[in-house]
Amino acid sequence: MGLRIGYGIDFHQLVTGRELFIGGVKIPHDKGALGHSDADVLLHAICDALLGAACLGDIGVHFPDTSAEFKNIDSKILLAKTNELIKKEGYSIVNIDSTLCLEAPKIKPYVAQMQQTIAGVLGISVKDISIKATTTETMGFVGRKEGLVAHAACLIQS
Amino acid sequence: MGLRIGYGIDFHQLVTGRELFIGGVKIPHDKGALGHSDADVLLHAICDALLGAACLGDIGVHFPDTSAEFKNIDSKILLAKTNELIKKEGYSIVNIDSTLCLEAPKIKPYVAQMQQTIAGVLGISVKDISIKATTTETMGFVGRKEGLVAHAACLIQS
Amino acid sequence: MGLRIGYGIDFHQLVTGRELFIGGVKIPHDKGALGHSDADVLLHAICDALLGAACLGDIGVHFPDTSAEFKNIDSKILLAKTNELIKKEGYSIVNIDSTLCLEAPKIKPYVAQMQQTIAGVLGISVKDISIKATTTETMGFVGRKEGLVAHAACLIQS
Repeated sequence: MGLRIGYGIDFHQLVTGRELFIGGVKIPHDKGALGHSDADVLLHAICDALLGAACLGDIGVHFPDTSAEFKNIDSKILLAKTNELIKKEGYSIVNIDSTLCLEAPKIKPYVAQMQQTIAGVLGISVKDISIKATTTETMGFVGRKEGLVAHAACLIQS
Repeated sequence: MGLRIGYGIDFHQLVTGRELFIGGVKIPHDKGALGHSDADVLLHAICDALLGAACLGDIGVHFPDTSAEFKNIDSKILLAKTNELIKKEGYSIVNIDSTLCLEAPKIKPYVAQMQQTIAGVLGISVKDISIKATTTETMGFVGRKEGLVAHAACLIQS
Repeated sequence: MGLRIGYGIDFHQLVTGRELFIGGVKIPHDKGALGHSDADVLLHAICDALLGAACLGDIGVHFPDTSAEFKNIDSKILLAKTNELIKKEGYSIVNIDSTLCLEAPKIKPYVAQMQQTIAGVLGISVKDISIKATTTETMGFVGRKEGLVAHAACLIQS
């Protein structure tokens, strides 16, 4: 068995007039994440962690934000495609641990639904996708509620 | 043997009138970290990495900053409780690698003591808890000395 | 076989009048990274990840920026020295996954060359050094093009 590590980070601005999708779940909020796709910061960080672990480039290589194909796309589709890419290389997911950095809204009420959603897309157990959250204690662009950041770390095995 | 990955990040403001605890060690400085507990950014990041690896939620779930129980609490107690939580799930720690991002003070003189303290609480070897540090080259809120950030990555095994 | 995890992060300012080295490759740009060495943010993050995994301190301990020996040094030399340090402890590299956070320039055209360069220095396969990139969506000091950040995660084995 060969284990490999991956780590991904993603950033999106929070703006009015957009819906907020995090971890495949639509979250009621006065702002949404800006992006070419649905701008799901958590799913993008997880895609990048998985692609990185398999040394398959990054999310921008596979799903360019200049392509009409991915305009407003549901990021669960990108996550499913990412999973196919790593499976084709003979890898399966051991576990994923992620952290959302955002000042608001509180995401704890949505974590279980996010876990179920992501586990469903990836075909893994909910015990193998951890989602944590923290504020930045009002510091920086996250603290000023200009945007949000997601970190994801993963182990995959061949 | 089943290995799992965890990654945690924590943020605290640096303010006057507080003591500065990092890695369980009290460090002489003109500012301290603001928080509900003793605001030990490194111990909190490590707690989150361990909880994430075991898919047990995050530090806010287990030790809510709205609870009087954790007011000004020594974060070594939170670290010990975290260790009990992952042990109860059948996990033990393989190694932890951490990085402090702060402009001042220099923490190098305290790293060995931090390692001994953390290793003691977790019941691991000092060789299995790495503590690194960097400035952000005067950039951002860390560079303006408004706060500090800690990253922690870990492997645990069942 | 004993696996260990490492994670490193590095920061450099982008200023005029300096050359830009990332991943051992000189990249044409109107700004370069400021630092005591050649300020290669990616190689420094990788050095720190490897040192952290082996619990050997950090890049500042081994290659202090107060030492004339390392003034304007090619960071590939630091990476090679780091590799020697972990080898001496009996470790070899399993894989490295890295992410550059920068607003400009686009680094995709240089990724393959960076991979070859790093793989060459470390004596690993190009499939074992992943390099990803993202902007911060114009937010923060990276978004204002004041600087750049690199994250690196690694697994090593004894």
